[in-house]
Amino acid sequence: MPDNRSHFDGARVLADLNALRGIGAYKTGVHKPTFSEPHMRSLEWLVQRLPEAGLTAAIDGIGNVLGTATKSGPKLLAGSHLESQNYAGWLDGPLGVVYALEAARVINPDPNANGAVEVAAWCDEEGHFGSFLGSRSYVGGVTDDDIDAARDRNSGRTMREALTAVGLAGRARTQAERGRHIGYIEAHIEQGESLESSGLGIGIVTSIVGIWQYRISFSGEQNHAGTTRMDVRKDAGVALTRFCVAIEDRFPRLCGPRTVWTTGHIALDPGAPSIIPGRAEMLFQIRDDDPDVIDRLENLLRSMAVEVSAQGRCSVTVERIRTGAPAMMDAAFQDAIEAASLAFADGRSVRMPSGAGHDAQILATIMPAGMLFVPSIGGISHHWSENTGDADIVTGAQVFVEACRHLLTK
Amino acid sequence: MPDNRSHFDGARVLADLNALRGIGAYKTGVHKPTFSEPHMRSLEWLVQRLPEAGLTAAIDGIGNVLGTATKSGPKLLAGSHLESQNYAGWLDGPLGVVYALEAARVINPDPNANGAVEVAAWCDEEGHFGSFLGSRSYVGGVTDDDIDAARDRNSGRTMREALTAVGLAGRARTQAERGRHIGYIEAHIEQGESLESSGLGIGIVTSIVGIWQYRISFSGEQNHAGTTRMDVRKDAGVALTRFCVAIEDRFPRLCGPRTVWTTGHIALDPGAPSIIPGRAEMLFQIRDDDPDVIDRLENLLRSMAVEVSAQGRCSVTVERIRTGAPAMMDAAFQDAIEAASLAFADGRSVRMPSGAGHDAQILATIMPAGMLFVPSIGGISHHWSENTGDADIVTGAQVFVEACRHLLTK
Repeated sequence: MPDNRSHFDGARVLADLNALRGIGAYKTGVHKPTFSEPHMRSLEWLVQRLPEAGLTAAIDGIGNVLGTATKSGPKLLAGSHLESQNYAGWLDGPLGVVYALEAARVINPDPNANGAVEVAAWCDEEGHFGSFLGSRSYVGGVTDDDIDAARDRNSGRTMREALTAVGLAGRARTQAERGRHIGYIEAHIEQGESLESSGLGIGIVTSIVGIWQYRISFSGEQNHAGTTRMDVRKDAGVALTRFCVAIEDRFPRLCGPRTVWTTGHIALDPGAPSIIPGRAEMLFQIRDDDPDVIDRLENLLRSMAVEVSAQGRCSVTVERIRTGAPAMMDAAFQDAIEAASLAFADGRSVRMPSGAGHDAQILATIMPAGMLFVPSIGGISHHWSENTGDADIVTGAQVFVEACRHLLTK
Repeated sequence: MPDNRSHFDGARVLADLNALRGIGAYKTGVHKPTFSEPHMRSLEWLVQRLPEAGLTAAIDGIGNVLGTATKSGPKLLAGSHLESQNYAGWLDGPLGVVYALEAARVINPDPNANGAVEVAAWCDEEGHFGSFLGSRSYVGGVTDDDIDAARDRNSGRTMREALTAVGLAGRARTQAERGRHIGYIEAHIEQGESLESSGLGIGIVTSIVGIWQYRISFSGEQNHAGTTRMDVRKDAGVALTRFCVAIEDRFPRLCGPRTVWTTGHIALDPGAPSIIPGRAEMLFQIRDDDPDVIDRLENLLRSMAVEVSAQGRCSVTVERIRTGAPAMMDAAFQDAIEAASLAFADGRSVRMPSGAGHDAQILATIMPAGMLFVPSIGGISHHWSENTGDADIVTGAQVFVEACRHLLTK
C-alpha cells in the first residue's frame, strides 16, 4: 500500500485552508494583523505541520517561518504569507503557504521525486509595519536600523515592541543561503476578475509590475469663500480636480495595454467649507512592468504641471516619492506552470502580469522566481468576502504541485 | 471751550484699535478665540470704556457686552465682535466695535445731538462654538438646549465649561427690548479687494448673502489599485473630480452677477494610495442674495448627479445641509451711509452685497439694519496679515459717526 502522503490530496488542502480560516475568523474571512495573536497561532500551526513534509522549522527573529529539508538533491523554495489585511479574506496569503505545504508533503517523502520543496511563510507581506520586511530580511535587504524605525501603521506600536510582545526579540533572522535553491515559486489568488471573466483556471505570471508613486501639490491663494469673486480666485482645489480629469483624459493615449493609475488620496488645505483652498495635494500611483511606459507618463504629468503653472493661477509640483522595480518572472518557471496547467487544468491558463506586489518580486532579486494565480470570485480583494471556488482551489493546488515536481526534475 | 468728547477724534479711534490689538497680539494680528483670556480681557476693556460714552454696561450670560444709555430720544444700536478667528487679523470685529464706541462718545454727551448710540459686542461671531450665538441669543433665537449642545470646534470643550471657566455661568442673557431701537448699524472690513481695486473708501451694504451648503457623495466600488483594470473600475474619486470640473464649467452659464461657489473639503474613502476609492465626498457651498439663482444652481447640481448616476459607474447624492437666509439691508440706512460718504469720503462709495456673514443679518430679523465696509488691503481676510490703511480707517469712522447722527436726527 503506497504512502498516502506522497499523493496529492485536494481535500487536505481545503481542510488546511479552513483550519487557518478558523484562526482569527471574521465573517467568512479573517482578521490577522502582523504579530496579532491569531497571526502567531497561524505561524505555530504551520511549524507543527511542516514535519509531515520532512521539514524542520522555526519562527525566526522577524517572524518568518522557514522549513528546511535534509533530503538530498535540488531544493525549490515555495511559500507566501499568513498575516492578513485588517478584516480581509481567508486566501490572500494562506493559499500560497498551503499549496507549498502540499507540494512538500507530496514530493519530499517520495523517493521517486527528485529533490525537495522547502516552505516559507514571509512575515508582514501585507505591510502593517513596512514593505515586504519578512522576505526582504531573508534576501539581506533589511538592517537593524530598518527594524528600529518600523511602526504599525494603525496602532503606531514599534516593531521592536511587537517582536518583544510575541517572544521573538533577540532571535536571529534567517538569511538566504546563496545557491541553495533552484528558485522560488508562489501561488496567490488573482485579486482581479480577468481569470474568472475568461473562464480560466490558472494565471501564469510573467512579471510583477512596479509601483511608481507621486505627490502632486497645488499652491494657490487661501481666501474667504464669501467675499472673493470667482474671477480673482486662485483655488488650489479647482486646479487639482482639473488636473485629475486631465489625467483621465490624456493617459489613455500614452499608456501601455495593462497600465493602471489611481488617485487614492486628496486633501484640500485648510479643508473648511467657507475657505477657498490655498493648497491641495494628491497621492497618485502608476503601475506597469515597462519603465518606458512610465517614462512617457511621468513626462506627461510633468508637462501638464508646467501647463497649469503657466496659466498663472496656481503652481503645481510633481514629486516622485516611490520608484517602481518591476520583477520579471523566470521563463522556465512560466513554462513549468504552463505544462502543469495542460496536464491538470485542461490548458485553461493565460500568461499575465501581476498588478499587485508579492514576496516573489523580492525573492526574484536573488533567484529565479515564478508565480501562479487562481481566480478570485468577482475580483474582490482585501475584503472579508474575498473568495475562490473550491474546485478552482484544488485545481490550482494540483497544478502547483505538478509545476514544483517539473522544476525539480528538469 | 467745547467738550472734546463731543467731537470726532480719528487718532482716538486708531489708538483704541491698537490697544485691542495689544491684547492677544500675534504678529501684526491677534489670536483671540472665543472665551480665551485675551478675548475676555478685550470685553473688560470695552466695559471700562463705555461710561466715557454715557453708557452702562456688563457682560451677559453668553458673553455679549451691551452698553445702555439713559439719554432720552431715539436709540440706535451699533456694534460688532471682539473675538477673532485663530491667528487672524486685528480689525475683523474690533473695527465695528470701536466705530460704535466712537459714535457713542461723539453723539451721546452732545445735547445738540438727537438720541443715543448704544454699543454692542456680540459674542462668537467667528463661530468657535456655533453660528452667531451671541447676536442670536439677543434676538431670542438661542435656547438653553442650544447652549448645552455647543462645543468649541477646535478643542471640543463644551460652551457650558467655557462659560463656567470665565465666570459667566448663571448670568442672565440679555434679550432685545422690542421697539427700543430705531435699528442696528455695523461697520466691518470688506474682506475682499473690490473697494481697494476701485479706489473707493466706503462700501454701502445692500444685502448679506445667504449660504447654501451641500454634501455631495459618490459611491462606486472599492478595489485593488494594482489588479483592477481601468475599464472595469468604479472609482468614486474620479467621479467626484469630474463633477467638480463640470460645476466650474456649467455654473457660469446659470449663476448671478455676484454668485460665488466653493468646494472647501474633499475626502476619498479609504484614502490610501493603493486602493481605488469606493466612496468620496465633497462639501460644496453657494452664496448669493437671490434665492431664484440658488434654485437654478441647485437644480443643475441635482440634474448633474442624475446624469452621472445614469452612466452606471458611480451613484451620486446631493444633500442640502445648510439653507441660506439672505438679509436685505434697510434702504434708509443705505441712504444715510451714502449721504455721510458724500460729506466725508468725497462720495467714493459703492453699493454692494456682503459675501460674508455678519451679526447684522441676525439683528435684521427684528429691526432695520445697515452695514458699512472699509477697504481691505489685498482683500486678505482671516489671516494675521489682514489690514486697512490708517486713512481709510479714519475716513470710515467719520462716515460711520455721521451716518449714525443722520439716522438719529431723521
